[in-house]
Formats: sequence, C-alpha cells, structure tokens
Amino acid sequence: MNMKKWVYRFNRHKVEGNREMSTLLGGKGANLAEMSSLGFCVPPGFTITTEACLDYTAQNGILSEEIKEQSLEAVREVERVTGKVFGDPHNPLLFSVRSGARVSMPGMMDTVLNLGLNDDSVRGLAEQTKDERFAWDSYRRFIQMYANVVLGANTSVLENTLENLKEARGVSEDTDLTGKDWEELCDLYQKMLLRDYGLEFPSDPLEQLWKAMAAVFNSWNNPRAKVYRELNGFSHDWGTAVNVQGMVFGNRGADSGTGVCFTRNPSTGEKIFFGEFLMNAQGEDVVAGIRTPGPINEESKNVSNKHLQTLEELNPTIYGELVRIYQNLESHYRDMQDIEFTVERGKLYILQTRAGKRTAAAALKIAVDLTQEGLISKEEAVMRVRPDDLSQLLHPTLDPKAPKILLAQGLPASPGAACGVVVFSSERACEFKELGKKVILVRHETSPEDINGMVASEGILTAQGGMTSHAAVVARGMGKPCVAGCHTLFIDVDKEELSIGNKIFKTGDTLTINGEKGEVFEGIVPTSKPTIGADFALFMKWADEIRRLKVRANADNPEDSQLALRLGAEGIGLCRTEHMFFAPNRILAVRKMIFAKDKEEREKALGELLPFQKEDFKKIFKVMGERPVNIRLLDPPLHEFMPRRKEEREELALALGIDAKEVKMRERSLHEFNPMLGHRGCRLGITYPEIYEMQVKAIVEAAFESCEEGTRVKPEIMIPLVGHAKELSILKETALKIIAAGQAVHETKEGRGKGDSKVDFKVGTMIELPRAAITAAEIAPYADFFSFGTNDLTQTTLGLSRDDSGKFLSEYVGQSIYPTDPFVSIDQSGVGFLVEHACREGKRTNESIHLGICGEHGGEPASIDFCHRSGLDYVSCSPFRVPIARLAAAQAAIEHGR
Amino acid sequence: MNMKKWVYRFNRHKVEGNREMSTLLGGKGANLAEMSSLGFCVPPGFTITTEACLDYTAQNGILSEEIKEQSLEAVREVERVTGKVFGDPHNPLLFSVRSGARVSMPGMMDTVLNLGLNDDSVRGLAEQTKDERFAWDSYRRFIQMYANVVLGANTSVLENTLENLKEARGVSEDTDLTGKDWEELCDLYQKMLLRDYGLEFPSDPLEQLWKAMAAVFNSWNNPRAKVYRELNGFSHDWGTAVNVQGMVFGNRGADSGTGVCFTRNPSTGEKIFFGEFLMNAQGEDVVAGIRTPGPINEESKNVSNKHLQTLEELNPTIYGELVRIYQNLESHYRDMQDIEFTVERGKLYILQTRAGKRTAAAALKIAVDLTQEGLISKEEAVMRVRPDDLSQLLHPTLDPKAPKILLAQGLPASPGAACGVVVFSSERACEFKELGKKVILVRHETSPEDINGMVASEGILTAQGGMTSHAAVVARGMGKPCVAGCHTLFIDVDKEELSIGNKIFKTGDTLTINGEKGEVFEGIVPTSKPTIGADFALFMKWADEIRRLKVRANADNPEDSQLALRLGAEGIGLCRTEHMFFAPNRILAVRKMIFAKDKEEREKALGELLPFQKEDFKKIFKVMGERPVNIRLLDPPLHEFMPRRKEEREELALALGIDAKEVKMRERSLHEFNPMLGHRGCRLGITYPEIYEMQVKAIVEAAFESCEEGTRVKPEIMIPLVGHAKELSILKETALKIIAAGQAVHETKEGRGKGDSKVDFKVGTMIELPRAAITAAEIAPYADFFSFGTNDLTQTTLGLSRDDSGKFLSEYVGQSIYPTDPFVSIDQSGVGFLVEHACREGKRTNESIHLGICGEHGGEPASIDFCHRSGLDYVSCSPFRVPIARLAAAQAAIEHGR
Repeated sequence: MNMKKWVYRFNRHKVEGNREMSTLLGGKGANLAEMSSLGFCVPPGFTITTEACLDYTAQNGILSEEIKEQSLEAVREVERVTGKVFGDPHNPLLFSVRSGARVSMPGMMDTVLNLGLNDDSVRGLAEQTKDERFAWDSYRRFIQMYANVVLGANTSVLENTLENLKEARGVSEDTDLTGKDWEELCDLYQKMLLRDYGLEFPSDPLEQLWKAMAAVFNSWNNPRAKVYRELNGFSHDWGTAVNVQGMVFGNRGADSGTGVCFTRNPSTGEKIFFGEFLMNAQGEDVVAGIRTPGPINEESKNVSNKHLQTLEELNPTIYGELVRIYQNLESHYRDMQDIEFTVERGKLYILQTRAGKRTAAAALKIAVDLTQEGLISKEEAVMRVRPDDLSQLLHPTLDPKAPKILLAQGLPASPGAACGVVVFSSERACEFKELGKKVILVRHETSPEDINGMVASEGILTAQGGMTSHAAVVARGMGKPCVAGCHTLFIDVDKEELSIGNKIFKTGDTLTINGEKGEVFEGIVPTSKPTIGADFALFMKWADEIRRLKVRANADNPEDSQLALRLGAEGIGLCRTEHMFFAPNRILAVRKMIFAKDKEEREKALGELLPFQKEDFKKIFKVMGERPVNIRLLDPPLHEFMPRRKEEREELALALGIDAKEVKMRERSLHEFNPMLGHRGCRLGITYPEIYEMQVKAIVEAAFESCEEGTRVKPEIMIPLVGHAKELSILKETALKIIAAGQAVHETKEGRGKGDSKVDFKVGTMIELPRAAITAAEIAPYADFFSFGTNDLTQTTLGLSRDDSGKFLSEYVGQSIYPTDPFVSIDQSGVGFLVEHACREGKRTNESIHLGICGEHGGEPASIDFCHRSGLDYVSCSPFRVPIARLAAAQAAIEHGR
Repeated sequence: MNMKKWVYRFNRHKVEGNREMSTLLGGKGANLAEMSSLGFCVPPGFTITTEACLDYTAQNGILSEEIKEQSLEAVREVERVTGKVFGDPHNPLLFSVRSGARVSMPGMMDTVLNLGLNDDSVRGLAEQTKDERFAWDSYRRFIQMYANVVLGANTSVLENTLENLKEARGVSEDTDLTGKDWEELCDLYQKMLLRDYGLEFPSDPLEQLWKAMAAVFNSWNNPRAKVYRELNGFSHDWGTAVNVQGMVFGNRGADSGTGVCFTRNPSTGEKIFFGEFLMNAQGEDVVAGIRTPGPINEESKNVSNKHLQTLEELNPTIYGELVRIYQNLESHYRDMQDIEFTVERGKLYILQTRAGKRTAAAALKIAVDLTQEGLISKEEAVMRVRPDDLSQLLHPTLDPKAPKILLAQGLPASPGAACGVVVFSSERACEFKELGKKVILVRHETSPEDINGMVASEGILTAQGGMTSHAAVVARGMGKPCVAGCHTLFIDVDKEELSIGNKIFKTGDTLTINGEKGEVFEGIVPTSKPTIGADFALFMKWADEIRRLKVRANADNPEDSQLALRLGAEGIGLCRTEHMFFAPNRILAVRKMIFAKDKEEREKALGELLPFQKEDFKKIFKVMGERPVNIRLLDPPLHEFMPRRKEEREELALALGIDAKEVKMRERSLHEFNPMLGHRGCRLGITYPEIYEMQVKAIVEAAFESCEEGTRVKPEIMIPLVGHAKELSILKETALKIIAAGQAVHETKEGRGKGDSKVDFKVGTMIELPRAAITAAEIAPYADFFSFGTNDLTQTTLGLSRDDSGKFLSEYVGQSIYPTDPFVSIDQSGVGFLVEHACREGKRTNESIHLGICGEHGGEPASIDFCHRSGLDYVSCSPFRVPIARLAAAQAAIEHGR
C-alpha cells in the first residue's frame, strides 16, 4: 500500500512544493518552497500538509504514525543539509514551528521557535556559538513559547518572574541580563511549570516536535481563529499546514536582526520600498510591537522612528541585497509582497513572502500601477481589489475646515476618520455597540483576542506597536481607521482611564482619530465626503469595460439620484413612491384618502396628491435624463400612514371633521396580524384601483412633460407583490390605458404625427413572492421586466420576518445553520433557486424580458456574483454601494465569463 | 373551405349525436340524440353546439351566417319529418328552444316554448287543433316567455294583466278563461311591450328563432348562472348548447299532461319508481310548483298529494308505457334517471332524460344497489357519490327524545335537520350569516335569484312547490335540509312575518326544520349525531379497497381520536401539542417557563409540564393502539401563551412573585411584527433546546409505558417550521439521544434483550416553508417523513396571511384572480409546485421517506386528488372529513390509477 504524502521538503537540494500548492501546503509553505526553488536564501525545512491537519482532527487529536515517520525522514534531511543534528548536545539543530493556512491569518495561530533545545543541547548551543547569553535566552524563549502554545500555560506568570529577576538584578532591559541570569530563569520556568501545571518540560526533542505540531493543528480551531474566519468568510474545513524550518537567529548580536518589509507602501500603495527592522531580535519582537523598530530606509521614516538609523545606513550591503530580493520577488509574484527577513551574523535569510495586506486605497493604486508597469493585465488588476473594500475609499474624512484640538500624534496605521466614545476593552466595545453607540477602542496594543472588539469599533487607537503591529494589520484588513504607536498616551486599563498630557478621558468620553495621518483629536470632529482620485476612475473604467451586469441605484429623490449618478449608476432600479407620501404637506391628503367613504371621495383625496407626485418624478427624471427610472407603485399597507400619537390623531380628526374615536376605529380596522403578508402591494391596486391610477397618471404626465422639455426619459412602472399573473394583467391593462391617454394628449399638444414623440414606457413587476417566482412563465407575458425583490422574497421563502428575526438569527449564524445572514448575502440554495427558476421560466415565455434585482443583495459581492450567473441584466443597490457593485460585477464576469 | 359543423340533428330518420357528446351538445342534446337513436318517442329537433355559443360570445353577440344557415337546414328537416311548416298560417310547426349545458344547471338558464306563433299562425293552430282556447293560451305563453327571456321584460306586469282579466271575468283559475279572453290578452301583451319597451313583437318566425337562440346563449352569462357555476366549480368557458325541438303539448285537454319522474327515489335512493304529473299543463308548470302535481303511482303519494288520483289510475296504458320506458332508460344509462315526459292527446313523448339529482344518502344507496344488481362495478359505484356530499350523511339529525312542538308539515324535500332564526329574503339571509347567525330561509317558493340566500342558510322552508321545485332540487344539491310546499304557512314578505295557525314568527325568531320528514318545529330543537347505515359501511369498504392514499386524522385529544377512528382514520396525522399547554392547570407552568431567567429555571418549569404531556400522549396512544400517531412539537410563538387581560397579568405577577410591570415588559419583548414569520416552530427548539427535550421525553416515556402495558405504539415526532436541513439535523440528533436513553431504561425494566422490545419511533418534519420544499433533497436524509403543512406553506408561498386576507381575498376570488380560496383548495400551480418538487427531491435522497399532508387541504377532494397524483402516502384531516377523504382518495385512484 502506498503511503499518502503528508510532508513536503524544501532545501537548497530538493524542493517538493511550489506556489500553486497553497491549498495543500498553506500560503507560507507554498512560498517557502517556491523561494527555495528560485534560489533565495531560505533556511531548509519541510511542511506538513493541511490534509494532515484534517486527519489529525478526524483522529480526535492523534498524529498518525505515517505523519511522524515522514516528518522524521524530513528532519534527517535537514540534518544532512545543515550538518547539525536535532537534539545533539554539541551541535544542535533547532527548528521553528509555524502554522500556515491557505490564506494568511496574521497572529491567529501559534508559533514555537528554538524547538530542539533542552538542558543538554542549550550547552551545546552556547559552546557552538560561544555565546552563553544567547543560548540561554533562546532556551528561555523556547520554554516560554512552548509553555504557552503547547501546554496552554498563562505566560504572564512567567513574564512576572522575568520582571522580578530584572528588579533583583537592578536592570531594566532584557539585554542587560547575563547568560547566568537566563540560565537561572530557565530553571525557574521549568519548576514553575511542574508546580503550577504538573508538567515535566520534555527534554526529548522529538516529543517537543510532535507536541508543537499538534499544538499548531489545534490552534486552527481556537476561538479567535474561528472568529477571524467567520469574519472573512473562510471555511473552517480548510485546516492549517505546519512549517518546520531550521532556525536562524536575529538575536545573535549587533550584526544580527530581523525585519519585515513591503515592496510598496501598504497604506497608500505608493511605489516605495518600505519596512521596519530590529537589530539583535527575533521576528516575534517586531510583530508584537514591543520595541519601536527602525526604518529600513529614508522612505520608511515616520514621526515615531525618524530618530533611528536606517538599515541602509547601518548595513548598506544587506540593504542592497534586500533590494535585489524584493524586486525579484515582486516581479516573480507580480504583486506587492510582504517579506519577513532575518540577518544572522551578517547573512540574510528570507523567512516568508506573501502578497501583502493593504488598504483599499493601496490595493487600488498598486493594481493600477502594476497594470501600467505592464506586470499584470486589466482583468488581473480588477481581481486585485475586494469590492467591499472600496467602501473605505468612499468613507468620509475629517472636515479640513472644522476646528480641532490635536491631542497626540501616532502612526497612520489604517486610513479613514472615526469618532466615538472611548472604551478600553473588547467586551466594553461590544456592550456599547449593542446600545447603538459608536466606539473607539483604546489599547496598549491589540492582540488576537481583541478581534470582536475591533469589529464592534469605529476605529482603533494604540499606545504601542508599529505599522505592522497586530492593530495596524487587522484594522487595514477591516477597512477601519487606526492610529498605532501613540506613545504619549497613558492608559490605565483597570481604572478605564486615558491620560494625554493633563487631560483625562474616561469610558464614554469622546475622541476622534484620523488614520490617514495618525492624529488624535479631542471630542467629535465633523467629517466630510471622500474625494475620489484619478486611479479610482481609471480602475472603475476597466471594471465597467469588463462587466456584463448593468448597475443601477435605489433612490427615491433627486439628491440620492444625483449621488448615484456621480458614483456611476446607470439608472434607477427602485424608486419607492411611499416615502413621498410621508412629507408633512402630503400626509393629510393620504389620510383623507384612507378615510374616504367611497371611490369618489378617495379620488378627490388622490387628486390632491397627484401634482406632488408628478413634481417628484419630474425632478428625478431631470437628474437621470435618458437613463431608465424604475418607479414602484405604492407598496406598504395603509396603516403605515396612520398617525401614531394621540395628539396626531386628534389633529387628524379635527382636519377631517370627524371624531377622534372614528380615527381610532379606522386604525383598528386597518390593523393586521402579519402586515408583511397583508393588504399591501398590488393588493391595494386591485381593491382600490384609483390609487395606482393616480400614481401611473403622475408618472405618465411627468414623463411627457419632461419629453416636451427636451428629455426623452425612460420610465419603468413597477407593480409590487404580484403573486398571480392575473393581478399583473389587470393592473397592466389599466396602466396601458393611462399611458395611451397621456400619449394622445401629448401628441395633440406637440402637434406631431404618431410614434414621432413616443415615450418608451415599460410596465413590469417585482418578483418578491415564491408564487410569483414559481409561476414566472405565466406572469412573464404581461411583464416588460422582472425585478427581484429579494428582501421580501427572503422573508417569505425562509418564513423569516426581518423585523423579528434579530432575536434568534445571530444564534442561527453562530450555530452555522445559515453561513451568513440571509438578508445580507442571498441564500443561494433557497431564494436563489427561485430566482434562477423565475429567470429561466420568464425567458421561456417572454424572450425579451428584462431582469434585475432591487433587494439589498444587489450591492453585496457574493450575491452579485450569483446575479451574474443567473443571467440577470442589472443589479440595483444603494448609491454608496454602486462602485462596489460595479467592481463585483466585473469580477463575476472575469470568474465566470460574460 | 369546409364549414364547421355547428348543428346536430335528431329525428326518427337521422341522428347525428350520441350520449358521449355532452361536451359539444350539452347533456340534454346528447341524451335527446341518444334516445332518438334508441327509438324512444322523442319530438324531432336539432342541437346548436356549445362551440356556437363560444363563437357567438367571441363575436360579441352576433350569430354567424354559418350557424344560421345550418340551423335553417335543420328546421327544414324537422318540417319534412313532421309534415308541418315553420311559420305556416295553416299548419304551423312550433318549436321549444331550451338551453343545455355540459352539466345540468336546473333553472339557471332560459327556455322559450311555442316559438313560431304569430298573429297568423295562431289562427292556423286553432283551426288545426280545433281548439281556439289552446291556441291562444299557447300564443300568450309564448309572448310572455319571449318577452321575459328575449326582451328582458318584467313579466310580473304581464301577470298582473292576466290577474286583472281574471278578476274582470270573475274567474279564479286560468283554465276558466276562454279562447277569446286569451286572444284579448295576447293583444294587450303586445301593446304593453310596445308601450313599455318600444318593442314590436316580431311576427317573423325566423327572427323569433334567432333571437331566442341568442337569448339562450346570453343566458349562459347571466348572474345566477355564474353564481351557480362558481358554487359548483364549473368553468365559465364551457358555454351552453341550444336545443330546438318540435313542440308537443301537454295542455291540449284532459287527455294531455306533463310530468317528471325519477327511476328511484331521489331523496332516499329506494328502488321505487317515483314521480309527479299535471294533466292539461305544460312542463314549466310542474317545475315552477304553481299547482300541486299528482303522484304517478301509489309509491309517489305523500302528505300533500295523497288526495289526488295517480297517473296509474287515470291512464294505466300511458303509465305502463312509462314504466317500460323508465326501465329501458335506467338499464341503458345504468343510473337513476330524471325523465321529463309529455302526453299529447294520449300519446307519450319523452322530452328529456338525465342522471337524476339526488341526496347524498340516495346517491350512496343507488350506487350500492346498482352494483348489487350487477349494473355497475364497484369502481363505478365509488365514482357516483361526490365526496363532499358525504358530509350530509354525517350531519346531525333531530334528537328523537327532545321535546318538540310541531307547527306544520310540508314535503321532505331535502334531508337533514336545521335550526336557526327566520329570514324572509336572500339579502337578509346573507346579512345575518355575516353576523355569525344561523338562518332558516322562508319563502313562498325560491327562484334562481335566491341562490345566495340559500347558500347562506342552514335550511330552506317554502310554502309552495313540490319535490321537484326549485327549492327542493337546489337544496338537495347543496346538501341542505329543505321542507317544501308547506301550505299552512302564511307569509307576509313586506312585514317580514310568518303565521302558522295563531302563532307569528318575525325575522329573528327561531324555527327548526327536519328535511327528512318535512316537519317544522317551534324554537331550537336539539340535534343528535347521525347514524351511519350498512350501505355506507359497504360503500366505504369498496372505497378503502380501491384507494392508495392512507387517511389519517388531525386530533389533539383522546375524544377526537376516538371519533376519527370511528370514521375510519388509520392514524393521527397531526397531534398539536400546544393545545395541551393552554389547560388551566398547566398554563402557569408554561408561563413560568417563559419567565425563566436561565436554562435551569426553564427546565424546572418544563419539568412540571412533563407529567401532563406524558399522560396526554398515553391516552391518545391507548385509543390509537398500533396505528401511527404523529405528534408535532411546540409550534406557536411564546407570546401566544401570555395573559391577555389586566387581571390575568396581575394574577400571574402574584404567582411568579414579580411585578405586574415586569409581566408587561416581557410581553412587550415577546411582541412580534409578523408572528407568522417569527420566533416559533423549530426556532424555539434551536434557541431553547430544553422545550423540545421535555416534549420528546414525554413522548418517549409515554410510548415505552404504553408498550409495557401491552400496546406496541407507533409514535412519530414532527419538528415544525424547518427551513434548513441543519435545523432538523440538530434537533433530530437530540431526539434520537432521548429515544436511545428511553430505550435503555425500558430494556432494563423489561429485562429483555436488545431489539426485542423496540418501539418504532420516527422523526421527521413538516414542510411548510418554501425553502424547506426547495431544499427537500438536503433535508430528506434527516427525515423519516415529510408532512406538508399546506396552511403555512400557502401563507408563505402566496405571501398571504390567512388572518388578514379576509379583507381582500373574497374580492380576489370574485375577480377570478384565484379560482377558489387557496386556503380551501390547494393552489396547485404555486403551492402544488413546491409539494411536487419536495416529493421528487425528497425521494431522490431518501428513497424510504414517508410523505403526507396535514394542512386543511387534506380533507378537500380536489386537493386530495392532487396529493394522489403527487405520490403522497397519506392525507390527514379533521375527523368529520375522514370519510370524505377516503372516498376522494378512492376516486383519485380510479381516475389516475393507483
């Protein structure tokens, strides 16, 4: 029987993986293999596959003998390549053990460095490196990490021990401790583990390795990793790979160090080589943001590190080598890279490369630049920006003219402006968010445990950490403003208090941050609309060239229509007429209509509304010009227009000359048990035909008057809540009569021949009831268009009231019953089935039918992808989501063909 | 170009139609052709097809030249056969012109007799018949009918003229008027028509014919015909045929007459020849019930005609001939026949035969008897009773022991007992019905205009008319009790008052009628349950042998279960557990559960409910024995269990030791905008698992205890409102665990080996959301059964709240948007699509899945037919509808194969 291959090796002689294999080897593993193949200086090692992780989980946490066997062979090979021996007391080979999933999940899972050390080999390492201090420091780091990651020990106890020792020695920096001190600490650590956890620290390097591997596999399912995946829509079924790699040491003295660099600026996208480093440190020190790292070059200098020497100045050779490497890696990967490097006694090693996380602005600029540099195609560029991230570019910024009191200056870690009340913990952030408050999360530095709090916040402010700290990376990924490393803050977490200079801010006080510039302001500073640059316009032009789906906006008034147009909408997909009914100067007429005793009285009241509606439509037509404007006739049940308060009721009674009791009675008679399924939509049109007649008349008159004023408008009349073809056939017939009458009047006025001055009216329906979707073939012959109202279609198909489901829907998403909130992303197997069915059946009986969507899903990328695949002609969404929809539509066209 | 054949002839030389052609020729036309073929003495004539009617309607009321041409040819043929000439002043051929649709619609459409008479030919008729009186009487009847039917004149004006004339002549009977009198009346009639309607009575016989044909076609769409069709589910698209037939005269003197006979008793089904006749009268006189007709034989005698001579006594020859004819017709048609005959001067003509309308009891008895006589098969017998009509047999009858005050004795026109308040008009009947009152409609005699009032009434009481009067025929068709021809009633319609002897009943006073015996009682007489006879049992046995669908009942308690069993239920298809929650000794525990602060408190409250639920189930299991009992876990939202009134709230607060305000607040927090789409069904099971756990535990313990007591029960656990497979998989897993635990306890108790004493539990789900139906393939692997909850499925698929749609649904049915109320008969193209889809997809992934329906549709014949075709295994309905479902299921099996 052939053994399954669980382990892939990479070293300068033999490489078994490549960059295409990230599903199996994880992103890190695949890139280590790729870089090894390309001849970069990568410490040798091997990757245990994601399949091994799944196997481990399936076996209830048992590493199979096969996996161990293949790993052991790989260890032997690293021994051969390095000439060192794993666990050898004289010439020990040490490993780093790191997780590496299909996609990068920074800080989410666990790492163990310096694995292979024990009470014997630490002496060998000391001897070999002639550096006792280094050897024992490495050992205590290993024990600390191992205790935390493998044994699940609370490391703060260990850290306190270190602090106590430093105090006893009268020193303040770790670097001031001697080898002996570290040796003592290692002994203390091991004793404490035995005392507090009953755990003997394992001296067998293989036992260390198996336990560390298992710990990394376990970390795939730790709570913060799960939250992160849910947040990003990643599957829990992927598993993580484990990378076991020979150690190189950035902490071997002044000629050693470690750093992280980006081939372009991850905040702005500018084409500048950009990075940070720490001399005499291991990689984790940079990421954790404990010391402020130095800039690698002039371009990387900022307010908090400008006093430090650059790597370029300190070691021009290494810097030059790094420049050559980054250029090679970027052109090889054809994308901005985030590179981790370590210098061990003057020799440069590359520990990792990956596509760098970036802000939306940077993603867009990099995509545009790489295209213009000839490195990628327009299609590739369009695929490089997550549609949802565009919203960052559309976020408001601080009003430049507003008065502001600058309190502090930190690092511009993630762009955008945010204001809110100050909170000092994730729990408090979530609590306040629940209450509907906007919060700014203030922390010394964030850690993966803070994910929930960051999600709940408008922005993040930290006192420590750099541009690549946890807070900075995660905030950029979320598109939230972040100011990091703001050292002038003094935070007292227990007191929930923040001091800046002589000013004190407690939980609930307000602050504003500007992530663009790293500024912190007192109180709430007004924000202004974002400005969209030339790169954005060019990028969106490419998207527009590629996409097949048209993008319209949902807009009920001229202002929203104007905004939609500016953001690239190609028409109005949903203009709700009921909002127009609520205006103070109209609501009385609406109520008169409701209280009408007969058709005649009702028509009189409607007559008062007609001029208002007509003007509304004319104004929207004026903005939209020759673009289609889809107007939905009255949809909500009449009781929505009734007065709510006692005084209002009395006022109304007075105005109508009736008794307040009568108002109350009418209200009661209009009450519905399930208004969602009640007397609304076209059911009003069927039972009170005069309401829709007035609305159609207003549309028709507005259209012809616009036409007479020179704009050949394209009105679409949408009849809501159709469940049966006959409803539409009856209401369409009436509409066509009114259109014909309007046309006749217009022709007389214009004095032109027939057909010469026709307005192209379309009459169609929303598909928002399962029955409408099911019987689409019967409805389509009466419809010029279908517009899927997926909000209501979701409510009816799932039997789920959006207003009531809040109480249990989060629990449903939590228990993975629905992968995401079905009101956010379309439920493809349920609601989607009906949409696809209706498209197919509608086309069958009306080849020329136009298909669109006007539910909230019309602006959500996964739903837009679904709409593309279903053959819809357009999506319609709120104006601010129009660019997102345009990009998502282009990506769908690239993924699935036009 | 070939002409379409619009006209089919029948005479002793040539017959162009037959009994199979009722779609084209109408029932009457097809049977006239059939009888002519068989050599019966049928006056010659021809039938203009139903297609001609549709053509006439499509041409906006124009008779095409083709139709006229073919009719004229047919007239010429009747002239040849009879030797008379249409419109001839000396030897005139006269016609009857009658409607005849595919199905009999008694009294719904129009008839014209004696057509062809004019001022000249009436004299020819007088000369030819040597009977001036007869000729002019015939002419005035013709003018009267023509005026009414063709010209739409109000005939009461004409009738008043007749009354005036009788008064002037000092006579009381029509028969006392002379030929001259009738001649004068004819002249008066024509003048009045000219004066009141500006209409010249046409003397051209062809013009008369075309107008009469058109009038019959028009009558297809008169309002009462439409109501009748809607009531009976007949299509408006069928059209009516017109039968034009040579006249024979029952009014040619003492040796002439006309009558109606049934080959068996239409009320009881007894095999006795049964009929009524009137000497010297035309057929309309019998049907209209103006004079009390005589019995044809001893068996036909009843309380109101027993003093009259029988036809057998008066004319044994004709009677003997009639007996031979009825025997021939019944064995030819193999069904009870309703035969119209006319005797003209001693010669017997058959004018019509058709399957006679009958009560449900008669239909059943006739079907059983005909089968036992070897005339029809069991399958044919089963097809002969309308399932809905069975409910008549299940109706209560008068309690024989109750004290009663007999007020009057009329004809037993339609069986069953009814009591209610007296009303004197259809409008008043509808008005009172609206108010929820039961009414008895009291009329001199009913006419087709009374249809709505009859529908609204519990029973009908008339002062005039016989067993074949309008009231009698229609009431039998509707399955409503009717006492007809109760001559001792004195009705004052204007005063809305009824006198019987010295007692006066006004609108709103109460009466009871017994249609079985023709009795009228004072006040409300208590009723008792119907007794089901041997014929019924035999008939249902045949149905049971034939059907494939099993029939279960919806029952929530032992009493209903017992009733269901007695009516033939094969199990419980839906046992709702929430009704058990409302019992006064339990509701407090339910409310404690709702107010529980945590899971523990909730479990405690549920613990109090468990013994109650267990006892409920045990009792039902005891009744049902080894038949399956399907128990639905809690379905309604929790707010349904909250107190409604202030005092209740205060009581509850006291009992819970909390503030009344807190009760109110909890109530508010449970409020839902659309409870139908809210936190209910399995959503409760997901969020409060302990509720379902308690219920499943109660079922499991009840089942094992029943088993220990000797009954191997078959419990089915039904999880409601599933929308996603994961909901079911989670809840089923819990249920299976509880079942396994119960099994273990049981085995220990019994001390038997494994598998020896297993209870066969099934766990499945209701399919009542579109998403569940759509994703049936994903759900089915977790379900032992699907039970279609078509009530909720209709609400969600159509987006129609049953509680709120009353306001507009009747308008929808009125405008034919939905052909019938979709909550009564399943919407086959919408909801039905989902049911079929779910059956197909469910079977695909779970071959052994059991399929049923438990919505109200499960007892409705058209829906049951649909269920049969969809491949369901069973239907479930309310106990009283079980026999209806059994029969409908058998009919479906016959119609579509098993």
